Amino acid sequence: MMFRKCVAEAIGTFWLTFAGCGSAVIAAGFPEVGIGLLGVSFAFGLTVLTMAYAIGHVSGCHLNPAVTLGLAAGGRFPSRDIGPYVAAQVVGAVVAAALLYAIASGSPAFDLAKGFAANGYGEHSPGKYGLVSGFLAEVVLTMMFLFVIMGATHGKAPAGFAPLAIGLCLTLIHLVGIPITNTSVNPARSTGPALFVGGWALAQLWLFWVAPLIGGVLGGVLYRWLSEEPSAQVTGVAPTARTT
Amino acid sequence: MMFRKCVAEAIGTFWLTFAGCGSAVIAAGFPEVGIGLLGVSFAFGLTVLTMAYAIGHVSGCHLNPAVTLGLAAGGRFPSRDIGPYVAAQVVGAVVAAALLYAIASGSPAFDLAKGFAANGYGEHSPGKYGLVSGFLAEVVLTMMFLFVIMGATHGKAPAGFAPLAIGLCLTLIHLVGIPITNTSVNPARSTGPALFVGGWALAQLWLFWVAPLIGGVLGGVLYRWLSEEPSAQVTGVAPTARTT
Amino acid sequence: MMFRKCVAEAIGTFWLTFAGCGSAVIAAGFPEVGIGLLGVSFAFGLTVLTMAYAIGHVSGCHLNPAVTLGLAAGGRFPSRDIGPYVAAQVVGAVVAAALLYAIASGSPAFDLAKGFAANGYGEHSPGKYGLVSGFLAEVVLTMMFLFVIMGATHGKAPAGFAPLAIGLCLTLIHLVGIPITNTSVNPARSTGPALFVGGWALAQLWLFWVAPLIGGVLGGVLYRWLSEEPSAQVTGVAPTARTT
Amino acid sequence: MMFRKCVAEAIGTFWLTFAGCGSAVIAAGFPEVGIGLLGVSFAFGLTVLTMAYAIGHVSGCHLNPAVTLGLAAGGRFPSRDIGPYVAAQVVGAVVAAALLYAIASGSPAFDLAKGFAANGYGEHSPGKYGLVSGFLAEVVLTMMFLFVIMGATHGKAPAGFAPLAIGLCLTLIHLVGIPITNTSVNPARSTGPALFVGGWALAQLWLFWVAPLIGGVLGGVLYRWLSEEPSAQVTGVAPTARTT
Repeated sequence: MMFRKCVAEAIGTFWLTFAGCGSAVIAAGFPEVGIGLLGVSFAFGLTVLTMAYAIGHVSGCHLNPAVTLGLAAGGRFPSRDIGPYVAAQVVGAVVAAALLYAIASGSPAFDLAKGFAANGYGEHSPGKYGLVSGFLAEVVLTMMFLFVIMGATHGKAPAGFAPLAIGLCLTLIHLVGIPITNTSVNPARSTGPALFVGGWALAQLWLFWVAPLIGGVLGGVLYRWLSEEPSAQVTGVAPTARTT
Repeated sequence: MMFRKCVAEAIGTFWLTFAGCGSAVIAAGFPEVGIGLLGVSFAFGLTVLTMAYAIGHVSGCHLNPAVTLGLAAGGRFPSRDIGPYVAAQVVGAVVAAALLYAIASGSPAFDLAKGFAANGYGEHSPGKYGLVSGFLAEVVLTMMFLFVIMGATHGKAPAGFAPLAIGLCLTLIHLVGIPITNTSVNPARSTGPALFVGGWALAQLWLFWVAPLIGGVLGGVLYRWLSEEPSAQVTGVAPTARTT
Repeated sequence: MMFRKCVAEAIGTFWLTFAGCGSAVIAAGFPEVGIGLLGVSFAFGLTVLTMAYAIGHVSGCHLNPAVTLGLAAGGRFPSRDIGPYVAAQVVGAVVAAALLYAIASGSPAFDLAKGFAANGYGEHSPGKYGLVSGFLAEVVLTMMFLFVIMGATHGKAPAGFAPLAIGLCLTLIHLVGIPITNTSVNPARSTGPALFVGGWALAQLWLFWVAPLIGGVLGGVLYRWLSEEPSAQVTGVAPTARTT
Repeated sequence: MMFRKCVAEAIGTFWLTFAGCGSAVIAAGFPEVGIGLLGVSFAFGLTVLTMAYAIGHVSGCHLNPAVTLGLAAGGRFPSRDIGPYVAAQVVGAVVAAALLYAIASGSPAFDLAKGFAANGYGEHSPGKYGLVSGFLAEVVLTMMFLFVIMGATHGKAPAGFAPLAIGLCLTLIHLVGIPITNTSVNPARSTGPALFVGGWALAQLWLFWVAPLIGGVLGGVLYRWLSEEPSAQVTGVAPTARTT
């Protein structure tokens, strides 16, 4: 059962990274009719929306180490399963980056030096935002992401709508954050492209693990406190809680 | 319980102001691939959509003094709770503006004089619309916002869809109104940025309290009359009615 | 009861015309960050989506003479109520155009000669499409609109989702049709702006009554045949069928 | 009953091809305010979303030979019905292309040589992507499309949301793939325009049958394995499973 869940997480994170980063690399700056940052924002959000309906009932559809850790901190996911989930997510993201590289390099206009959708700050922020701004943005945006995830999957929230709310929350987060850091809020998604870009992308990768994980834990804890969920529920909640 | 509701309103209004105004300040005019007014419209709407699924069952997710007052006028919210709700909303919006200022000022291109997403009319309207147009637009758009909120949360409306309808209504309102006043329909959202811009923004802030509050009351009363809700329901309706 | 339904139809059609045409007049061509035809398409669709959740349970939320006639042809609406519904829709659209004129003329850049969102063909088609193309497009798009309305409100379709499907269908129709005729598929929406533009807009208005009404009837009849609804249901179906 | 289902599939695929390709031919490159690739992506997705709510309960709303074959491979559709479904889909797409040609040629700016929304690779890829990239992209995107379709229509997924997830999945696929091959993932949609463009479009049409069909089967089989559906269900599943 755990193996199946991890396969689902790997496939889902593959989709998030392949289609999210793919829209940025392939279509965002297409001459005259490109989808722009608005299209990239929708692409990232729709990867989560579609997968949450498809595999939410299998693995809970985290697709993101910060979500997994935040849900654990919020008492919705058993701590012992964090490791396998995160490993599966990273594998999915790395495979996605490799496939995206294979496809994108088939265009004469492809140029890895344009960034390949890697996340960055300072010189490597799309809008040249500094380290502090980048760190702050990643913490706050991930915190609010987890807050919405925790709330939309709460037993009192309308059933069935959580994938919609969570997917469109990721769209919203990208509508704000792309100029700052290219938007991560997801260490696995950041790791895939960074391995191909190398150099500065690997050197700055630490921030896109540390800040989202901090934000995720803060959001999980904040919502848990707000909703007064008894701590007794911690171990008993199934990982599928996210999309019920 | 009331304290918890007010915390939820503060967090939700923080999200509306931080992510809505943030998308405008950070991403709308990004060179070549900026999200434009369409992206800003989606951002504002998605703040409400996501929060309504997350905290609708906690506080009703008003996030807006005009919504709180309009729901009270429509017989859906107890008058005695207006004060704490509005106070919490303003606090959330001011904290959001402060955090947005901290993050946005980390970019070399940041310029407070561009407006910082504050609302305005006349010289300070994006499209140079005069006072009368601005006042009229804010009244009508807020009135229709409340009309939709009252209708979508009515007992006969399909359950669970209200956050979708209400969030996308705010998107629609922004698709029409940004060139006129930068779109407020929400006194709390207007107050946050105005405190940082100062000067003209504070001088014009009165309109973004008066017009939305008038519109909100009109919309609440109009729908209440249309749906013939008996006045006996006024005090008995729970604040969570909005998203059930 | 009929009076109340007609008030709901008038308010709803007001919203469709005010916010739909308003987005086109005020925001579509705003310099550099305008919402474009994509934003206008979403605006029109969202007027229907929001109103269908708000007043679907009151009047069925037709907001369009072609929808009213098509639903009657499809056996979902009593013929005797067509008159009052259509009259209310036209009143709502004309009031909307008047208010939009009052607000839009408060901008120094306002120019009625740009079209004020009126529909047209030939010289007055945005893309200079001829009469035959315009007629064909309006018939086919309205026919498919009614087909989707009939299907999404069918008893076997998932409950509660019809406003979403119908609203986004209107968005889709605008994504295709704006360059051809500025997209009508709705005689009431066409009549409002035409009264203010006068001249050519009034002279061409006939097409935006004839073609959508033909298309609406075709769509209603086509779906009715496909779903084999027994004709015995014709008089017994409540007008709220559209959004249940 | 089978005849009625095939009519529904033909009408639905007509809508997908007419409105999807129509948005690309008519509105994508409209001067200054065109909907761009983002608008075209939404148009394709919304054709499926709207039709899935309208005819999902009639035929299952495949609208795509790769979906029909993939669902059969996944054990959700009886193999004996593949033939009639695919034939109906191709007929619908060809009629759509003919009607689109009739309408679009009514504009002085119409030029069949611009591609008429046909799919292509190499010289005829919008971004000049080579054969290998095009083949790989079509296989992977169709595979993930079927994976999402299979998952969102699974008995454990929230009821009623499948049309939303599946329609927006097609939007997402277009957000990534248009620059590569103009995005097919649907042999019927590719065949319609190719018949009118002729020459290179017909010569390259094989890829847009082979790659999507391979991808569809892979996706159906992958999800079936993941969800451990017992093979005994293969023949017993109704074609309406997709949208329940």
